[in-house]
Amino acid sequence: MATTLITGGTVVSATGRSRADVLLDGERIAALIEPGSVLLGTDLASSVDTVVDATGKYVIPGGIDAHTHMELPFGGTAASDTFETGTRAAAHGGTTSIIDFAVQKYGERIQDGLAAWHEKAAGECAIDYGFHQIIGGVDADALAAMPGLIDEGISSFKLFMAYPGVFYSDDAQILRAMQVARDTGLLTMMHAENGPVIDVLAEQLVAEGKTDPYFHGIARAWEMEEEATHRAIMLAKLTGAPLYVVHVSAKQAVEQLATARDAGQNVFGETCPQYLYLSLEEQLGAKSAEWGAFEGAKWVCSTPLRSHEHGHQDAMWQALRTNDVQMVSTDHCPFCMKGQKDLGLGDFRKIPNGIGSVEHRMDLMYQGVVTGQLTLERWVELTSTTPARMFGLAGRKGVIAPGADADVVVYDPNGHTTIGMPVDAEGNPTGRVHHMNMDHSAWEGFEVDGRVDTVISRGRIVVDGGEYLGRKGDGRFLKRELSQYLT
Amino acid sequence: MATTLITGGTVVSATGRSRADVLLDGERIAALIEPGSVLLGTDLASSVDTVVDATGKYVIPGGIDAHTHMELPFGGTAASDTFETGTRAAAHGGTTSIIDFAVQKYGERIQDGLAAWHEKAAGECAIDYGFHQIIGGVDADALAAMPGLIDEGISSFKLFMAYPGVFYSDDAQILRAMQVARDTGLLTMMHAENGPVIDVLAEQLVAEGKTDPYFHGIARAWEMEEEATHRAIMLAKLTGAPLYVVHVSAKQAVEQLATARDAGQNVFGETCPQYLYLSLEEQLGAKSAEWGAFEGAKWVCSTPLRSHEHGHQDAMWQALRTNDVQMVSTDHCPFCMKGQKDLGLGDFRKIPNGIGSVEHRMDLMYQGVVTGQLTLERWVELTSTTPARMFGLAGRKGVIAPGADADVVVYDPNGHTTIGMPVDAEGNPTGRVHHMNMDHSAWEGFEVDGRVDTVISRGRIVVDGGEYLGRKGDGRFLKRELSQYLT
Amino acid sequence: MATTLITGGTVVSATGRSRADVLLDGERIAALIEPGSVLLGTDLASSVDTVVDATGKYVIPGGIDAHTHMELPFGGTAASDTFETGTRAAAHGGTTSIIDFAVQKYGERIQDGLAAWHEKAAGECAIDYGFHQIIGGVDADALAAMPGLIDEGISSFKLFMAYPGVFYSDDAQILRAMQVARDTGLLTMMHAENGPVIDVLAEQLVAEGKTDPYFHGIARAWEMEEEATHRAIMLAKLTGAPLYVVHVSAKQAVEQLATARDAGQNVFGETCPQYLYLSLEEQLGAKSAEWGAFEGAKWVCSTPLRSHEHGHQDAMWQALRTNDVQMVSTDHCPFCMKGQKDLGLGDFRKIPNGIGSVEHRMDLMYQGVVTGQLTLERWVELTSTTPARMFGLAGRKGVIAPGADADVVVYDPNGHTTIGMPVDAEGNPTGRVHHMNMDHSAWEGFEVDGRVDTVISRGRIVVDGGEYLGRKGDGRFLKRELSQYLT
Amino acid sequence: MATTLITGGTVVSATGRSRADVLLDGERIAALIEPGSVLLGTDLASSVDTVVDATGKYVIPGGIDAHTHMELPFGGTAASDTFETGTRAAAHGGTTSIIDFAVQKYGERIQDGLAAWHEKAAGECAIDYGFHQIIGGVDADALAAMPGLIDEGISSFKLFMAYPGVFYSDDAQILRAMQVARDTGLLTMMHAENGPVIDVLAEQLVAEGKTDPYFHGIARAWEMEEEATHRAIMLAKLTGAPLYVVHVSAKQAVEQLATARDAGQNVFGETCPQYLYLSLEEQLGAKSAEWGAFEGAKWVCSTPLRSHEHGHQDAMWQALRTNDVQMVSTDHCPFCMKGQKDLGLGDFRKIPNGIGSVEHRMDLMYQGVVTGQLTLERWVELTSTTPARMFGLAGRKGVIAPGADADVVVYDPNGHTTIGMPVDAEGNPTGRVHHMNMDHSAWEGFEVDGRVDTVISRGRIVVDGGEYLGRKGDGRFLKRELSQYLT
Repeated sequence: MATTLITGGTVVSATGRSRADVLLDGERIAALIEPGSVLLGTDLASSVDTVVDATGKYVIPGGIDAHTHMELPFGGTAASDTFETGTRAAAHGGTTSIIDFAVQKYGERIQDGLAAWHEKAAGECAIDYGFHQIIGGVDADALAAMPGLIDEGISSFKLFMAYPGVFYSDDAQILRAMQVARDTGLLTMMHAENGPVIDVLAEQLVAEGKTDPYFHGIARAWEMEEEATHRAIMLAKLTGAPLYVVHVSAKQAVEQLATARDAGQNVFGETCPQYLYLSLEEQLGAKSAEWGAFEGAKWVCSTPLRSHEHGHQDAMWQALRTNDVQMVSTDHCPFCMKGQKDLGLGDFRKIPNGIGSVEHRMDLMYQGVVTGQLTLERWVELTSTTPARMFGLAGRKGVIAPGADADVVVYDPNGHTTIGMPVDAEGNPTGRVHHMNMDHSAWEGFEVDGRVDTVISRGRIVVDGGEYLGRKGDGRFLKRELSQYLT
Repeated sequence: MATTLITGGTVVSATGRSRADVLLDGERIAALIEPGSVLLGTDLASSVDTVVDATGKYVIPGGIDAHTHMELPFGGTAASDTFETGTRAAAHGGTTSIIDFAVQKYGERIQDGLAAWHEKAAGECAIDYGFHQIIGGVDADALAAMPGLIDEGISSFKLFMAYPGVFYSDDAQILRAMQVARDTGLLTMMHAENGPVIDVLAEQLVAEGKTDPYFHGIARAWEMEEEATHRAIMLAKLTGAPLYVVHVSAKQAVEQLATARDAGQNVFGETCPQYLYLSLEEQLGAKSAEWGAFEGAKWVCSTPLRSHEHGHQDAMWQALRTNDVQMVSTDHCPFCMKGQKDLGLGDFRKIPNGIGSVEHRMDLMYQGVVTGQLTLERWVELTSTTPARMFGLAGRKGVIAPGADADVVVYDPNGHTTIGMPVDAEGNPTGRVHHMNMDHSAWEGFEVDGRVDTVISRGRIVVDGGEYLGRKGDGRFLKRELSQYLT
Repeated sequence: MATTLITGGTVVSATGRSRADVLLDGERIAALIEPGSVLLGTDLASSVDTVVDATGKYVIPGGIDAHTHMELPFGGTAASDTFETGTRAAAHGGTTSIIDFAVQKYGERIQDGLAAWHEKAAGECAIDYGFHQIIGGVDADALAAMPGLIDEGISSFKLFMAYPGVFYSDDAQILRAMQVARDTGLLTMMHAENGPVIDVLAEQLVAEGKTDPYFHGIARAWEMEEEATHRAIMLAKLTGAPLYVVHVSAKQAVEQLATARDAGQNVFGETCPQYLYLSLEEQLGAKSAEWGAFEGAKWVCSTPLRSHEHGHQDAMWQALRTNDVQMVSTDHCPFCMKGQKDLGLGDFRKIPNGIGSVEHRMDLMYQGVVTGQLTLERWVELTSTTPARMFGLAGRKGVIAPGADADVVVYDPNGHTTIGMPVDAEGNPTGRVHHMNMDHSAWEGFEVDGRVDTVISRGRIVVDGGEYLGRKGDGRFLKRELSQYLT
Repeated sequence: MATTLITGGTVVSATGRSRADVLLDGERIAALIEPGSVLLGTDLASSVDTVVDATGKYVIPGGIDAHTHMELPFGGTAASDTFETGTRAAAHGGTTSIIDFAVQKYGERIQDGLAAWHEKAAGECAIDYGFHQIIGGVDADALAAMPGLIDEGISSFKLFMAYPGVFYSDDAQILRAMQVARDTGLLTMMHAENGPVIDVLAEQLVAEGKTDPYFHGIARAWEMEEEATHRAIMLAKLTGAPLYVVHVSAKQAVEQLATARDAGQNVFGETCPQYLYLSLEEQLGAKSAEWGAFEGAKWVCSTPLRSHEHGHQDAMWQALRTNDVQMVSTDHCPFCMKGQKDLGLGDFRKIPNGIGSVEHRMDLMYQGVVTGQLTLERWVELTSTTPARMFGLAGRKGVIAPGADADVVVYDPNGHTTIGMPVDAEGNPTGRVHHMNMDHSAWEGFEVDGRVDTVISRGRIVVDGGEYLGRKGDGRFLKRELSQYLT
């Protein structure tokens, strides 16, 4: 097997930094070595197949994006990234594992849903991938099938308190599924928004002629995220199961999580870059020459972007610091404006929900380090170490440690990244584009004071200096253990 | 320099575990290596001076006890452990660094206090040691001297809201000291109990003839710990300085810390084993043939042991899990019953305050892993990794990482430890005794399902299989950086 | 019209006491007069038709029980008190107004439901009565009919988050109804328990063979009252409508109300005597020779009696003092054991839900004054003054003031009341029985250190010294104004 | 004795309104009578000495201002209102009782302080007056003298956590005084600001040249009011004594009170009109041609006016609605700008602290009714009924009820009041001035949509249509009972 030595960098973990060379042997990390170690290191560089010079750079565990939706069918179309394009984009951004969502809907068998997703992904991925299981129809069959997921390496499932008629579970269904979770160790992930109420609000807004994307954010009121979060917490308390709330965006939802945690309950939350940087007013309310007020459709996602006025964004950064929110995922769910988002012209309810960020998460969160919102260690913890522990990949992913998979990113704090699809003075693309299969970027013009340099996936360099060197199919399916965050 | 290879163990960090051999080169950790690494490891065992077999055992960073009081003058006597006996006992228990407290009192110069403590410790210690600075007299001179502490490697200082006339600072003094802390980066440690009120309550109890040790716990009501904790938090908020509260024992004090943290304030807390395991009723209220109700004097410490009735102990374990309390120290402050504690016969106020635990912290906290209160990772974080980061030793201590000091403990989960000074049927000591200079143990009869096996301090094996192999004077003074917990 | 003078008593209001004679002129209170007033009072006693001597007694506004269910169809039977028997019993207990619930169910028209209840009550009542409207089927017709209730004198309506398939409203229905409430001033009353979840829990308990009445209380977990209370609060917040939560029984539900109130939201709660005095363990878990463990069926009501263990009862008394709960009603819903409650032998789900207390509320709450839980003034406020203001009867009911209806109770603090159906040594009834149409008493053996002496309803003495002097049909329907509690 | 009949008005109590004529007989209220009562009222108007026509007006109990400081020595001068001028002004504003503060300072005997205040007030007052006792020196003598206050009709005392060296009590002193309060029933009033810290902040500001009145508000940070409020609450909790916090101005202090109340503790708060209407930015930061930035001195009081930015004012209105704050007093402590306030030119610390409002409280709070902040009933409760109950005057003051003192105000909701000292176009006074002995008004230009019409003090009309008809010396000393708010 090939060997690689990453030399001269600063290895950053969730709790510290050390100057160390990292030796990769085949697909795994073989050693961390103090530079210049007489006993080991003097001629190591000449013994290995490849030397990566990380001088002045950070050496971190590859990013783990625990919330993506490649090719997700939604609102009559499907997310525009395939597993091929999506994982390639992820690799470009320093993410070396994703956990996507297999889907079971009402009337379907869980096994069939899972098989369908395996089919979509097999042989397509540039990096490793796992699945959570969406259960959109909690019935007796589904409940019976749930324990079997563990043997399939699927140790977490997701329910929706939103989207009645699509993915929605009512409280009785949630209770029953959480009881299975308690008994088996499966982790319950929750989309916590009161969908039935939101749908009424949306219907009333449209009836009043308020059809622009902006009103998507009005209909999905923070009160209904707070409410559903509280309800999910109480159902979890009643059953004794841990709870993981996805894409937390409202300050008050965080307060519910914090209150439960202060009382000793095992509840966790993830947020996404959009809830840290973007707002109802600036993005959902945006206007452009091309799209007019429909420009805001680029940022229609659920939970929605929140108002600056209430300080949700600041609250979310704070929660990342205080560990009331434990992780940052993307909820990557890309749709093009033309032919997809534009289905919702004249009715915001028909806009496919989603933002594409899988490529930018590591950069965007690093910018939080630059601006002082996070420590370097916390960046690694939020984007890699905790996702691995939370979702049953501890020891294999999320750390730079002997025996772990050789998923390593060399990150250059002196580099710079311009996100988006910049054009020159004549309006022509400059050539520097993102790699997601989208006709726009939700992050157009964001500047990051750092840069993904080298990305190594199980020992292979898949991205180097912005060039893609990977190969579809090299990414393997991750059979995950039960969550290790609590054990 | 000598080299050591620790083989076959499981290296435990604050966020994970890995099977790795650890190579020590002189005083530092040189490498972590996957066992059997073809490239490096085949003949490494034969190349090093010493091989430590850790098969089936945990390899953890040496414990850091950030709160000890060797030879502390108190109540007309002095803590019974010298730096020599105390650090030797610490080493026996898997602790390889202590941070003790140099003392300045009203009317003294900080520099003189610090110099006196350097003199006590120099050439005496078995393991590395640092100092916090107690400032018992916050006056203009003291305020002017505080910034100079940083160059001395003293990056934290402690104030007392208790002990009027001895160490007590009033709120105006606390404010001024915290302002210096904010401006310099020094970390404020606080003994948070409302001393003036407690002294009145104690006086009233004694006047009523309630003189037994039990009433020490009644006088030091949790309400006055909660109050002082809140006050310290608000003073910290006003100045903008972080705050570290020592020996938190009351559930309600934790709630104050949690509330402040939920609001984003940088406040931290430490607790001690006694607040996790012992209670007002069982210990302070104990009776013995030898001492009668004065038996309780063995557990007179401040803050006091708390009532089981209010669930303080459970709350403290919970806070360790939720990170509302970040560290476990001992507040090691030993006094013998004969000639020291017995000064308080007939008046609990005259009992020297303190419990000796420096030897037992790692074991007692490991028992929390055994009973399911803590994860293995959290044990390491609470006892070593966070203390290092909190007090400016990150990178050097608290981690098993290349370049860090070779402070390593091999801990055997299949071993067993009986704490205390057991006697045989005739009442004769069995030979198995603790190593602290005390005529009793506050932990008599505690059983731990694990055992400190090998203790390595900066590359030297100082304890092996219960045998002390160290040497006084090998421990060095630790010049500490500013706290790295937030940066 | 007849005139009455109540002399020598202490008039108690919600905020004070005064020594005053009360002159009734026909159906209204004509004056409050300082005893011995030269200008007015010297020969007044001889001028009036009737003199009631209240020397040494309290003169209070007649009780208002804002939550009764006479003849309510439930679980295949109907509440055993008719409007005749129920209002007569109420009068015996010092209650001179009730507000009962007209019922609309799914598929029915609100107007029809209301008409049916008018028919049941007309010409039957001993005291005045009003109606709230239960809306069990929130559809377009119901929403359209709601504003019309105001002209009918129905200014409040009740929704159920429990009882799926019977009275249950989902969140979308609640939202729409609350929007009407906000626009019209109707007050929303809420049965706040998560019915769908409770029904699953109940089904699972029965499947495990746990069929005794005790498990009624287990199935209806406090967590699901807390949850529903929070959800109702957030829906109210979203719409901007005030909220009134009926029969609050869980400490944690009160905490939700208190939190919302602290934040300035207009949320209110009522509790009932059973939640203050009775418990899951003692009542629902009771056994008797006659009924065995089914004895507990006497206390099956929803929300259920709560555990003593968690201190719900103490919390409820406290909430009455702090005004986090504003009123005490009975939720009077009587069923006999034989032929009604016994429908649930072998399956607690089939036990008709309800306790009969309409006769005892004033006495039971007065006992709270005796034991120091409440002030005398608060007793009057909780049982009469606030109910009047909350439900649109201010000025007419709930006060002893000129112009108000002459609903007055003379209460004797030196009297004594034994509640229940006591038997002599041979087991024969002693003659002292309650007046509700029930074959048992949920309050058997309660002793009250006070006694209802004289009860006056719109100027007529309806009860005197325990003797019923009233007449069915004298009670009139109360057309209520919008709530005056906030205006 | 003279008799008066107030006819045609709406009598407003804390819990309702009624159309009633009020008959006064000598110094007391003899009756409330339904207008046109055949039995009583037909010729009553012709029988009485005086008829007051209140048609279209509110008839309310005379205002009780429970916090005034006439002639208070402060900062080398004394409050500018004597008991004569101050009580006359109060009468003009519809206040018929004040409770002023007798002062004991360190080194003085309580009895002497009380005697001195009796001397100042005796024979001078236009309306009834009582005293609280300030205890500025809690020593053994003072503690021994405290119980004797009750026989003197002084049932409440005030301590200061501010003003070190003047009125300040330390926590040990507060504890001891609260223990006496618990044992005797005396009510503890607390000035809750951390004075020692505030004094340091003030000193530092002045040292930086920040000497304008504005910085008075900066120095007295809300954090130090919150802190002291919490501390007082915990001391009260420890002793078991109720607590009354004076002049609450910070939102966060209210939150502390609310939290304690939610937990069932008996803590109460008063606020003042200045904390409802005025702000740090607009008043303390005001500039004028005459005084420049020293204009702000007009509003220097302690606690200080709070920032609009944090919403303290809104929070205070809300707390009045939710009963987390129970009363509105004025903390009337007037100083002229010339010769008094101007002592602090160049150093805000030397500005005598205080605002004069005793004349305007009833009007200013009525404006809260007009703007929808309060109900009419709550206005009466906050300004009269609760002050009477809180401070031992229940039954005598604060209600319109037979037997109560005939302290009655006829308030005209169709009248209008312009507050201040308006000048005409040439700058000459228009003749409409306030009646307090001040050379300015803190309320200049406030407009109130209502007007005090007739003011009756113990049966005598002391103000009518703005004309003063009273007489100094008619006001009597009020021997107060223990607080009746809890009993």
